[in-house]
Amino acid sequence: MRKIETCLSPELIHLYNIKGKNVVIVDIFRATSTMISALANGVSYIIPFYSLEECRAMEEKGFIIAGEREGKTAEGFELGNSPIAFLNGKYKGEKIAMTTTNGTLAIEKSKTDANQIIIGSFLNLETTANYLNSKEEDIIILCAGWKGKFNLEDSLFAGALASNLKGNFISDCDTTIALESLYECHSENIKKLLSLASHTKRLQNENIAADIDFCLTLNLYSTIGVFNGEMIKIDQL
Amino acid sequence: MRKIETCLSPELIHLYNIKGKNVVIVDIFRATSTMISALANGVSYIIPFYSLEECRAMEEKGFIIAGEREGKTAEGFELGNSPIAFLNGKYKGEKIAMTTTNGTLAIEKSKTDANQIIIGSFLNLETTANYLNSKEEDIIILCAGWKGKFNLEDSLFAGALASNLKGNFISDCDTTIALESLYECHSENIKKLLSLASHTKRLQNENIAADIDFCLTLNLYSTIGVFNGEMIKIDQL
Repeated sequence: MRKIETCLSPELIHLYNIKGKNVVIVDIFRATSTMISALANGVSYIIPFYSLEECRAMEEKGFIIAGEREGKTAEGFELGNSPIAFLNGKYKGEKIAMTTTNGTLAIEKSKTDANQIIIGSFLNLETTANYLNSKEEDIIILCAGWKGKFNLEDSLFAGALASNLKGNFISDCDTTIALESLYECHSENIKKLLSLASHTKRLQNENIAADIDFCLTLNLYSTIGVFNGEMIKIDQL
Repeated sequence: MRKIETCLSPELIHLYNIKGKNVVIVDIFRATSTMISALANGVSYIIPFYSLEECRAMEEKGFIIAGEREGKTAEGFELGNSPIAFLNGKYKGEKIAMTTTNGTLAIEKSKTDANQIIIGSFLNLETTANYLNSKEEDIIILCAGWKGKFNLEDSLFAGALASNLKGNFISDCDTTIALESLYECHSENIKKLLSLASHTKRLQNENIAADIDFCLTLNLYSTIGVFNGEMIKIDQL
């Protein structure tokens, strides 16, 4: 049977053998939720950047630039990291250059070895599970975390995804077993548990409660987001 | 209010500010459980060693040497890493030199900066909680993990300890919030969840099911184990 492992932070990714596996990148608040919202709302594709400067330079090449640092829109950027900014097709047909604190780091750290990189979010949980299930490869869920540490929202998503894949995949590590169980304990009301999370508190201080709520909406989209080594775009089931 | 944080692996300890905090070292299967069993059964003190060779050399100095690698007794060592070996005062009054795969690494990584290092196990959970509660310092629970990764048994202990300290300490990180909740979901039957854990399976392959059972016994002892920078010995409440 195919296997699922979960890596709680990019700081631990060297302990995992990624080679040939499908890696699901998770940064619920808000990078991966924003990417899925953008693609579902008609954005052509997204190029992720680790550095603010490289990302900023893409504006001249006709890209809409989206940059976030410490939860805020980076100076001089049209967009920050809000999934809501893309609603109603506002950026339909546009190309986006995006840089975020933790999310793009996770992509950087896995892009060399992974078979495929898939963008995970609650917004497209079920479709993402179906997509992974249609593939033969083992899965590593890579949580972006917060400055190298575990975070609650990415971890709960990992548990939710493992729970959705149960029966077709084995949870082959303690991390996945723990998070699947944690998610199943709270699946009726994950927002309540997440209201305790440090990142939720940080974001609420930035007055982006609407973003948090949006990022936790289950299965709003049936869009699959993959990173092909160069750009993030829609793939079909 | 005093704070509790949890670090899931020695690989992440550089992300935490240990300075002046009380650090609880956790290696449920089996180093810290064995240390508490040894002290509760009359062992005078324990010196932890990172290297097998340094530990072995202590035999000449009158120590009983205990060494474990990959779950097995290290070659030439009188004892491995079984808490049961110390029952019935078999090593009463003896000095032990001990080296284990993950547990002593966790002690090494925190001994410079911690205010105090406390040895955590299910065997003395309640007494350990009372001891920590009698102190003014914030707490960091440092899980030994398994080869740098998260493991279920150390994590569940962290959740159990945080749950026991609720009301007197704030869970100041997402890790602690998640593990406290996971423990509370399973507190009636942690053995059932742990039967899924990878380390349980590994140890069962080594025919040490009795050790596993013993390590998960709640509050068998009211012994407090502390590391004073040189040796692990009993402290009083």
